Amino acid sequence: MEKRDIEIVDVTLRDGSHAMRHAFTEKQVRETARGLDQAGIRYFEVSHGDGLGGSSLQYGFSKVDELKLIEAAADECQQAQVSVLLLPGIGLKEDLQEAVKAGAKMVRVATHVTEADVAHQHISLGRELGLKTVGFLMMAHMAPVEKLVEQAKLFESYGAEIVYATDSAGALLPHEVKERVSALRDALQCDIGFHGHNNLSMAMANTVAAVEAGATYVDGSLCCLGAGSGNTQTEVMAAVFDRMNIETGVDLYKVMDVANGVVAPFMPRPQEITGSSLIMGYSGVYSSFLLHTNEAARKFNVDERDILVELGRMQAIGGQEDLIYDIAAQIAAAKG
Amino acid sequence: MEKRDIEIVDVTLRDGSHAMRHAFTEKQVRETARGLDQAGIRYFEVSHGDGLGGSSLQYGFSKVDELKLIEAAADECQQAQVSVLLLPGIGLKEDLQEAVKAGAKMVRVATHVTEADVAHQHISLGRELGLKTVGFLMMAHMAPVEKLVEQAKLFESYGAEIVYATDSAGALLPHEVKERVSALRDALQCDIGFHGHNNLSMAMANTVAAVEAGATYVDGSLCCLGAGSGNTQTEVMAAVFDRMNIETGVDLYKVMDVANGVVAPFMPRPQEITGSSLIMGYSGVYSSFLLHTNEAARKFNVDERDILVELGRMQAIGGQEDLIYDIAAQIAAAKG
Repeated sequence: MEKRDIEIVDVTLRDGSHAMRHAFTEKQVRETARGLDQAGIRYFEVSHGDGLGGSSLQYGFSKVDELKLIEAAADECQQAQVSVLLLPGIGLKEDLQEAVKAGAKMVRVATHVTEADVAHQHISLGRELGLKTVGFLMMAHMAPVEKLVEQAKLFESYGAEIVYATDSAGALLPHEVKERVSALRDALQCDIGFHGHNNLSMAMANTVAAVEAGATYVDGSLCCLGAGSGNTQTEVMAAVFDRMNIETGVDLYKVMDVANGVVAPFMPRPQEITGSSLIMGYSGVYSSFLLHTNEAARKFNVDERDILVELGRMQAIGGQEDLIYDIAAQIAAAKG
Repeated sequence: MEKRDIEIVDVTLRDGSHAMRHAFTEKQVRETARGLDQAGIRYFEVSHGDGLGGSSLQYGFSKVDELKLIEAAADECQQAQVSVLLLPGIGLKEDLQEAVKAGAKMVRVATHVTEADVAHQHISLGRELGLKTVGFLMMAHMAPVEKLVEQAKLFESYGAEIVYATDSAGALLPHEVKERVSALRDALQCDIGFHGHNNLSMAMANTVAAVEAGATYVDGSLCCLGAGSGNTQTEVMAAVFDRMNIETGVDLYKVMDVANGVVAPFMPRPQEITGSSLIMGYSGVYSSFLLHTNEAARKFNVDERDILVELGRMQAIGGQEDLIYDIAAQIAAAKG
């Protein structure tokens, strides 16, 4: 394979699942996969937005079985490899084994930034199955740098070949990304990755900051399709890194063509920074809260933004959804 | 007035004119102006996209006379002041005098980055009329830093109270903005401003870089509404600077409300980074070329992107539109 400075990992067919309400069709997946493969992307992810096994009442049912989508995507590839996301607790080890049978070659095992230890067995299994195996530390803005490094070292000790700092809420600013990725680069032997979201309009700058600090795997999505305000825009990244003489191996026109010609036409709405997604980045809260904050705001007749800001102040994490209604009630009481 | 670290200057009602095909209604202008004023924005711009006198066959006719729009905007303000844009050669000194009668309190005189000298009389007139007077160096990426500084000093010598580095094509990267603004800060006594576009998804990061380098006036537009891929997003800027403890004096919720409640509903389409607007930033060419490159691409059956990239390589500037068809013909000949 030719030498590249960095790998752009495309997550349109996984993070984009959130924006598509998990309704990707096989045709959409095939056309996107073919375009990514032809544009020179080497790794792209195909899974329910919440990873393998995410199709459920809690996270939203997938329209098409993800194993079928993984198989279809792998079938379209001449050179690219399909990655899957696995959140221990949502996806099972059996799900990963099935994904490998469907054609997955890479697994990214994702945990909250302070909970890498729950991923030990999943990382081991990824290696046993011969997959390129990645540790993914979500909500990286919520831990001090030392904690992030400690957790990344755990992932590395389990056998992860790449560890990601993941800005799930789009809450980080470039200097904060640089600080985090530099610390990871100094402390780890394995490769470092960065996954950004655009809630504060900083996804691209954060991605460049990560690369300047030593990250060699950076995530993007076509047309930004993804959770919240969406991801770093893959085709724009190809242009920016080309301008910076950083070799990605991605063909700019071809990746633009799949974004504008394949993905844009099936997007349910454009990926904008608007309303609650801006406040998500501003307050640093997780996108899965939004369903509940919206409902709580209506129920208690308060401003949803006040709930999100308070959740951020309290450093609430996934699983603490009950808090949302308590906070809304308190805000309503304080008002009235 | 309370102390602020920086002023966010909103250009929705001027740069947004491009995206609206110069069809702002008085109602849209009044509601946006009222919202900006109530959110604490102190300066916002109202003009045809190409400035006073821009309403024409060449630049597109305005739906409503801009003097009427300026008057309506000024009428809505309790504290904010209306700025107008003036490009010598398009707008006349008489246009500025009329704008002042309509209520304008600030003028921004804009020239290509190498042509500040054509603005001498206009800057002088702005000062004579008692306006806050600004020099605006467009396409700032096209000149070496020393040239930019030289031209900015000319503006200052004419009496400009603020000089802007304007990234008209959204072609600059954060380190390039920092270098330029730092050089201006070192060489000038007056205030420094920065105006960004989002063609490379760097508008926000560039704006932050400008402020870190000493800029105290930064432009934004609600929902990014503006030429090309749009501007730095005003309401997101309010959130980002608040996160950085940089005081803008802008009320985050109120500015979000005018973006999401007033501007979003009248936008003809979302402001995305797509197709030719990405290539504009990548190759650094001016947005007014797009009409012609699109036509030339069709006429000669070549890829519009190839024309834009070649124009960028040649450092073509406004007024050289004839070149576009020559380039398209050459590309077609080379293909065939």
